[in-house]
Amino acid sequence: MGQKNHAILLIHCTDRKGLISTITHFLFEHNGNIIDLDEHVEKIEGIFFMRVKWELEAFDIPKDQIREAFAEQIATKYDMQWQLHFTDKKPRMAIFVSKASHCLYDILSRHYSGEWQVEIPAIISNHQTHEEVARRYDIPFYHFEVTKENKAEIEAAQMTLLTELNIDFLILARYMQILSDNFINAYPNKIINIHHSFLPAFAGAKPYHRAYERGVKIIGATSHYVTADLDAGPILEQDVAKITHKDTVEDLIRKGKDLEKIVLSRGIWTHLQRKTLVHNNKTVIFD
Amino acid sequence: MGQKNHAILLIHCTDRKGLISTITHFLFEHNGNIIDLDEHVEKIEGIFFMRVKWELEAFDIPKDQIREAFAEQIATKYDMQWQLHFTDKKPRMAIFVSKASHCLYDILSRHYSGEWQVEIPAIISNHQTHEEVARRYDIPFYHFEVTKENKAEIEAAQMTLLTELNIDFLILARYMQILSDNFINAYPNKIINIHHSFLPAFAGAKPYHRAYERGVKIIGATSHYVTADLDAGPILEQDVAKITHKDTVEDLIRKGKDLEKIVLSRGIWTHLQRKTLVHNNKTVIFD
Amino acid sequence: MGQKNHAILLIHCTDRKGLISTITHFLFEHNGNIIDLDEHVEKIEGIFFMRVKWELEAFDIPKDQIREAFAEQIATKYDMQWQLHFTDKKPRMAIFVSKASHCLYDILSRHYSGEWQVEIPAIISNHQTHEEVARRYDIPFYHFEVTKENKAEIEAAQMTLLTELNIDFLILARYMQILSDNFINAYPNKIINIHHSFLPAFAGAKPYHRAYERGVKIIGATSHYVTADLDAGPILEQDVAKITHKDTVEDLIRKGKDLEKIVLSRGIWTHLQRKTLVHNNKTVIFD
Amino acid sequence: MGQKNHAILLIHCTDRKGLISTITHFLFEHNGNIIDLDEHVEKIEGIFFMRVKWELEAFDIPKDQIREAFAEQIATKYDMQWQLHFTDKKPRMAIFVSKASHCLYDILSRHYSGEWQVEIPAIISNHQTHEEVARRYDIPFYHFEVTKENKAEIEAAQMTLLTELNIDFLILARYMQILSDNFINAYPNKIINIHHSFLPAFAGAKPYHRAYERGVKIIGATSHYVTADLDAGPILEQDVAKITHKDTVEDLIRKGKDLEKIVLSRGIWTHLQRKTLVHNNKTVIFD
Repeated sequence: MGQKNHAILLIHCTDRKGLISTITHFLFEHNGNIIDLDEHVEKIEGIFFMRVKWELEAFDIPKDQIREAFAEQIATKYDMQWQLHFTDKKPRMAIFVSKASHCLYDILSRHYSGEWQVEIPAIISNHQTHEEVARRYDIPFYHFEVTKENKAEIEAAQMTLLTELNIDFLILARYMQILSDNFINAYPNKIINIHHSFLPAFAGAKPYHRAYERGVKIIGATSHYVTADLDAGPILEQDVAKITHKDTVEDLIRKGKDLEKIVLSRGIWTHLQRKTLVHNNKTVIFD
Repeated sequence: MGQKNHAILLIHCTDRKGLISTITHFLFEHNGNIIDLDEHVEKIEGIFFMRVKWELEAFDIPKDQIREAFAEQIATKYDMQWQLHFTDKKPRMAIFVSKASHCLYDILSRHYSGEWQVEIPAIISNHQTHEEVARRYDIPFYHFEVTKENKAEIEAAQMTLLTELNIDFLILARYMQILSDNFINAYPNKIINIHHSFLPAFAGAKPYHRAYERGVKIIGATSHYVTADLDAGPILEQDVAKITHKDTVEDLIRKGKDLEKIVLSRGIWTHLQRKTLVHNNKTVIFD
Repeated sequence: MGQKNHAILLIHCTDRKGLISTITHFLFEHNGNIIDLDEHVEKIEGIFFMRVKWELEAFDIPKDQIREAFAEQIATKYDMQWQLHFTDKKPRMAIFVSKASHCLYDILSRHYSGEWQVEIPAIISNHQTHEEVARRYDIPFYHFEVTKENKAEIEAAQMTLLTELNIDFLILARYMQILSDNFINAYPNKIINIHHSFLPAFAGAKPYHRAYERGVKIIGATSHYVTADLDAGPILEQDVAKITHKDTVEDLIRKGKDLEKIVLSRGIWTHLQRKTLVHNNKTVIFD
Repeated sequence: MGQKNHAILLIHCTDRKGLISTITHFLFEHNGNIIDLDEHVEKIEGIFFMRVKWELEAFDIPKDQIREAFAEQIATKYDMQWQLHFTDKKPRMAIFVSKASHCLYDILSRHYSGEWQVEIPAIISNHQTHEEVARRYDIPFYHFEVTKENKAEIEAAQMTLLTELNIDFLILARYMQILSDNFINAYPNKIINIHHSFLPAFAGAKPYHRAYERGVKIIGATSHYVTADLDAGPILEQDVAKITHKDTVEDLIRKGKDLEKIVLSRGIWTHLQRKTLVHNNKTVIFD
């Protein structure tokens, strides 16, 4: 779970022969013991994806020189997009929330119990509803009253706060405000939203009401990275539950809450494990 | 499974106090032993739905007078929409199919093994692909070559055939022709289609390709009664399967086939059991 | 959700003709508007089960005389086992927990957010692990140090406490002590346990380790009423998750936690809605 | 799907540094383009598993020398257990069946429609029930009347037949005879059985009856390789369906049939794709 210090490389590039051999040879010759290796080749466009995790103990490149060494010896040559992470650094996560509590509480429970290796320096809300629970969990709470008029201004203040707090990524835990493109573009693949339907069905407002109207026999939830297109970003996790004609809209909302909180938390967990890669508005999840 | 002779009433009407009491009293006073009773009240509009199945042996209204007795004593008074079925009559079902075989074969397997109480007097297709398998199962096969020009004419011929064969309801087992409103309206809630997505997502053509493009993590299938709106009729059954980034369009199609055939067959089974009621483009399924 | 005052009758007895008619007639003649009615007949033994919920507003038997009226007019005659509940009374629930936190936190979150109509006057534990979180949620915490020697004495003290606090039912939210028959028999169908497997597989200790050893492809969780037979009481809810060869025991435990908390909370919710009946060590769940 | 000619290596051995690098380098230096690579390390015992599939077109070791080359250059040195398969060879599969038809029919449907790359030279049964359907699908049917007395003799005759027909692996598609250890040991990881429960629950006879008795809320099915221990071999696939108190034993059997046929067919498909490895009575499924 990140207690020991491991390195993780996430890579994608145009596929060509010998990539796995080259990368594993690089780690092998520097005495890196591979703990996990996953690769995927998307064959239509010919894109190679890889996640490799190795032990740093016997690795003979010093930690602060790995980035440079990998870039020089491999990444540049193959024109790779890549990230390097170390598991001893806890990412810093901010939670945006409006009035609904179930996703927030689930995140706080997991954090408080030590289930996740993450720091939560801020809960940010357009309502004061959750100030009390934030206090109970000793997490700083920031209230921003959002109106039509002050929206741009508030977003600027929020972005300043996020920068000051060194936030790595954001969770929209049922945050009922639409973020501007400007804000979203500042956090590419770093904003995770939960939508209360199995997308692409019922994107937008009131999905449970519309599911009830349509008479579907399953409802769902989707966690995804946020992009400028509403509810259309790369999907991390989806799950569904069966419903019947007996379920009212209130029942859908109640049953859906359980889906939402689990699907969001799974999406966060996968992100925290550095198991997600994004290409072409789709995720590769090395689960 | 219908071997014994039972009667089934399917009812819906405006809800009011005492309906259950009235109906069960009617059966009770005529010495009908209730085997199954399900009821549902849709509270927004106030609609009462009921399915009741009872033994005919000791019932003191003769079978051929039940319809009249129920109409006179109850149905008319409460302005009910209702159907009366007897389980000793096997419904007659026609299968429409194009080239895909998995749904057809699943239906034929169930029929041949005696799993369903149904007769299949016709397989109707716009291709000759399945003539051979129909022959192997001794089911009459009717080939109608459909072109843009002859579509109305072919439909007329098909409707004549269905009438001649006393067909009670139709299955579109991956039939790739769009039926005319005229045809559809002749079989209200009597045409069951399988769509290869979890509707309302990916209605229309090539749902697996679009699911792949969107990067969803679940695929699904939906069986529904056909209405004049494409893929928008009352839903009978839905199910889903999890997929990953590793799945190609071909994998989705392969995994989807298993969903489609099971979801269609479950929809047919429920219809055969007289467990479906339709109101407001939605189903009540007394499963 | 119980805000309005409704009455709920839960009944089971030997099946005979006319039961539904009789009961619904009783409510109808006293001007009770039925909101929900579910019935089930178990045909092998011939047992009739019913749940009926009706509005008290226009009901012409005073609330405090319903029990007597129903007994006299119906229940005694048909030798019924029955319960009468009113939705304006919040049940009082005690939580027993050891060290694992996920089920406890999920319950507390739901309670704190008002999702459930329930009072929680006590968290009872054999460890002090959760004293702090109980304090954060303002719920009285009772620590009982249990040893082999003092077990009977501690149970006696716990039972006294439960009586003093007017506890209606208990949750074992991953409580790692085995209760005595004496204790269990004092709360028939009023102790809900969560077991971390799909029972009857892996009853007893360390189910995830045994699931890993066996190489199963699904794991599960089961909430059930506690009886004197370990992990063998009437099942309320079960759910499963798919796993693969890649999942370690730690992964099973992590994935299982999400199942456990949801399956336990669903079991509690169903119990709170008075939708559960028990006969022959099995539940009827009118969901 | 095996139309093009690819090679597949399935390997397992004690884990050590550099295995992936070594194997991929071997393929790379002989100009083999890797299509799929999956690996897994079981960390408790330290076992390395790998499946790699590559194109044979440009590969510079002739097809009939690959086995020897891989053995000499790699496998012997690392003490590997390994298999080499070519996708242009259709495996030959025999189906053992008793009276139940659903699994047999599902297999035949898939085979007849060309969904699988497999040959079926024999349906073998202790009953004549399916002789007719075998004829309809033009598959040779062999009837062996099994009694307590002639069991050993019949098995010997069956093994002779399987050898004569060059059978690669066997399916027990609800075959209600217990095979002798002698028979089983002749086909290690080459006999696939379907059991009608989520193992290890309800191993042995009449699982649906026992599931009903126990009052479980889910039923399941399991496909597995057969070993000398009844229903205890390495698991290939499992799936479940939710049930309720309303379901009779007959309902469980009906719903279970759909699970069984899909779970068995998925197990067969995975085996056909050479995606299964067995170690320590557990499978690694590279799906």
